[in-house]
Amino acid sequence: MAAAVPIDRECEVVVLGGGFSGLSAARALARRGVDVVVLEARDRVGGRSWTESVGGLRLDRGGQWIGPTQTRLQSLADELGVATFPTHTAGEAVELRDGVRHTYAGLIPTFDAPAAADAVEAILDLDLAALEVPTHAPWEAADAGRLDGTTLAGWMDDHLGSPVARDLLSVAVRGVFGAEPEELSLLFTLFYLHAGGGLSNLVRTTGGAQERRFVGGSQQLANGMADEIGDRVVLGSPVEVVRFDSDRDCGVTVTARRPGDGSWSVRAERAVLAVPPVIASRLDWVPHRPALRDQLAMRMPMGTVTKVHALYDRPFWRHDGLNGQLVADAGPLSSTFDDSPVDGGRGVLVGFVAGRDCRRFERDGLAGVKAVLEQLGRAFGPRAAEPLELGVQRWSEEAYTGGGPVALAVPGALSTLGPALREPVGPVHWAGTETATEWCGYLEGALQSGERAAAEVLDALGARS
Amino acid sequence: MAAAVPIDRECEVVVLGGGFSGLSAARALARRGVDVVVLEARDRVGGRSWTESVGGLRLDRGGQWIGPTQTRLQSLADELGVATFPTHTAGEAVELRDGVRHTYAGLIPTFDAPAAADAVEAILDLDLAALEVPTHAPWEAADAGRLDGTTLAGWMDDHLGSPVARDLLSVAVRGVFGAEPEELSLLFTLFYLHAGGGLSNLVRTTGGAQERRFVGGSQQLANGMADEIGDRVVLGSPVEVVRFDSDRDCGVTVTARRPGDGSWSVRAERAVLAVPPVIASRLDWVPHRPALRDQLAMRMPMGTVTKVHALYDRPFWRHDGLNGQLVADAGPLSSTFDDSPVDGGRGVLVGFVAGRDCRRFERDGLAGVKAVLEQLGRAFGPRAAEPLELGVQRWSEEAYTGGGPVALAVPGALSTLGPALREPVGPVHWAGTETATEWCGYLEGALQSGERAAAEVLDALGARS
Repeated sequence: MAAAVPIDRECEVVVLGGGFSGLSAARALARRGVDVVVLEARDRVGGRSWTESVGGLRLDRGGQWIGPTQTRLQSLADELGVATFPTHTAGEAVELRDGVRHTYAGLIPTFDAPAAADAVEAILDLDLAALEVPTHAPWEAADAGRLDGTTLAGWMDDHLGSPVARDLLSVAVRGVFGAEPEELSLLFTLFYLHAGGGLSNLVRTTGGAQERRFVGGSQQLANGMADEIGDRVVLGSPVEVVRFDSDRDCGVTVTARRPGDGSWSVRAERAVLAVPPVIASRLDWVPHRPALRDQLAMRMPMGTVTKVHALYDRPFWRHDGLNGQLVADAGPLSSTFDDSPVDGGRGVLVGFVAGRDCRRFERDGLAGVKAVLEQLGRAFGPRAAEPLELGVQRWSEEAYTGGGPVALAVPGALSTLGPALREPVGPVHWAGTETATEWCGYLEGALQSGERAAAEVLDALGARS
Repeated sequence: MAAAVPIDRECEVVVLGGGFSGLSAARALARRGVDVVVLEARDRVGGRSWTESVGGLRLDRGGQWIGPTQTRLQSLADELGVATFPTHTAGEAVELRDGVRHTYAGLIPTFDAPAAADAVEAILDLDLAALEVPTHAPWEAADAGRLDGTTLAGWMDDHLGSPVARDLLSVAVRGVFGAEPEELSLLFTLFYLHAGGGLSNLVRTTGGAQERRFVGGSQQLANGMADEIGDRVVLGSPVEVVRFDSDRDCGVTVTARRPGDGSWSVRAERAVLAVPPVIASRLDWVPHRPALRDQLAMRMPMGTVTKVHALYDRPFWRHDGLNGQLVADAGPLSSTFDDSPVDGGRGVLVGFVAGRDCRRFERDGLAGVKAVLEQLGRAFGPRAAEPLELGVQRWSEEAYTGGGPVALAVPGALSTLGPALREPVGPVHWAGTETATEWCGYLEGALQSGERAAAEVLDALGARS
């Protein structure tokens, strides 16, 4: 069947997806002299990293931070000459709880001190438990079946007495996963925390995952990788069909829409699929679809997140002794950060509408947007309710991503189907931050997954030469 | 954008999917004089009902039973002159537990009588609780958030002391849903049980969901509906793109592969999507994809089930006082039934490999098939291990279904995204057994969903005329 397709381009490796993982794989391969072609559906590279210019500002509509231990990301920035600067943290943070505004210093809202202590203890307990889950194979954890048979919410029921502590942890979880604690397999949660150095690390600015930003935005790193690969990166070319015959070792042919119109086919010895699991599952597979990978993909929904940017002429909250951070127990926004440019010449707040709040927000339409403005006003004063501009980036509407920030695994998925996550299917290898064992879900994880997929492919090509 | 597509066919309503739900909708519309076109991806109608001829036998590779209260299904059979006959139940059933074989009479294996009593009580408790969940809107249940925040496994932890009782219930759940208790939102489970008249009903042969079979197989009913609709049912035409402009009331255009080669476009005032949620989510949506429906679809994975048919010259187990039913605590098979033809002239056992066992089975390849034969031998004697033929129908490999027998909703899905299940998106209406409020997941539910979608469409068309 595969032989009947007219071939427009032959290469050694075709990479599907020009996000951080696909570009990382392609660059590693190209540097080893492999003839690669990257097919990217959108008219830009970067995937979940997308930097948009708005009135002279460079706003990261997707992934934007870099933190300690994200060494691949830092090396890439160094190599490309992209500078970083610390997230603005001077001042107090705001908490909105039961409609009342409080301010606090440090990591956790402390208005209810015993609850805050409970929440911190729970975070440390989770982080300790996470160390027992091997990141390369969570399904091999000592107690994998039991851990995968319960949700993070179930764990919280057993470990958190106070509803306030539960709320505090839920807000953190919503921000990290774009999902609610009841959606997350405990096994998956522990894997994810282990891969990212712990929940205490993931929720931090200074010393953690939100420590620094890129001057000019994160997408520059994708652009830089793509520039190196050159015209072998084809934009505007969404793949529709993946053909291979697992019974005959005759490579893989992908058919994609051609930039402009029509379609074209690229034949390669190997393919790297560098897209989220659910997106890979939406391709046509001819003649054999990878049924177990597909069943796994059905159990790895994308989180639900919408990112908003509120633009002001100045970061006025700084002068009020605030750091621009908000933690809210009720939506739309569950958190905000100061996202002003490095020189502080303009004011930008970035906010996250996530999980259940995001699903309500998407349904509410204009009323949801008004609620965001009102919430900003309650948190940071009346000026905050009247930004010069409010940008709303709805990741659930992105056909080539499907949601954000990351895919999660629901209960029962990893323990019964987990090995299908990275196991090659014939000549098809898997990349994407969801397949990472370090910093899964982050730009760093995307880079790691691409490098790992490239190494697999080099091994496979070497075995044939 | 929609206007730029050349139109090959215009009609009033285009139905995507020629399973029971799509045909039911199309037939209801056609009977009201509506010009409808049904696009079916496969070269047959029936969807999850598929009757295959094997050496003179008519084997149902998919849905096959009819039970009390499935009135639409019965009426359809009556109308088409398809007779039914009772599932063979005379004799004792076999239980395999911890590698040991027992026989028993009645609904539940009684080797461990206290555990059996526990399991029965749990079933009754679930069925009572299910009555509190409104089938038309489970998300409006009094305690929807809490029920959706836990899994059926969580409920079992609280309500079942004995591991044996837990095993018994798990086997039942595996058979009904193709999934494990930890995968199922409790809210979804209760909804599903309510819609089907209770778990005690769903696991029964006599008096329940497996009471009777169709002489000649269930697909005849789909064929009969399709015959009435005639050449407006187009086979071999998988839809790839759904176009509509929600801002302008200009109908909907679907582009499908054309039987043979190439593609064609059908424009209609309304569309009915009569496919499982995950399959609908794999279409291209232009220009706007229904983001909330998509997020819901990501949280409604198909169950995992493979159906095996073992063919013998005679139903020899009947002469050994056995009814052909097996319940096993370890896979591959979790249950079997006597599936011999009405005259008993040949012997057929139908078995289900479901949930975690199915995922292992699909991975094990030939070893899995051997394990099935060995298990049949242990249950029904050496003759059972050597069937004339063993048919293996892997629903997870079916590109246009994605698994079986039904989609389930994972924790947190229905309470936050449930309303998107049936809510029309512009001119697009939703059918499919997953959208049914009576007998969701069954052929009866498919018929109900099609009738409901047809009524919605008639309303909408009426409003425009």
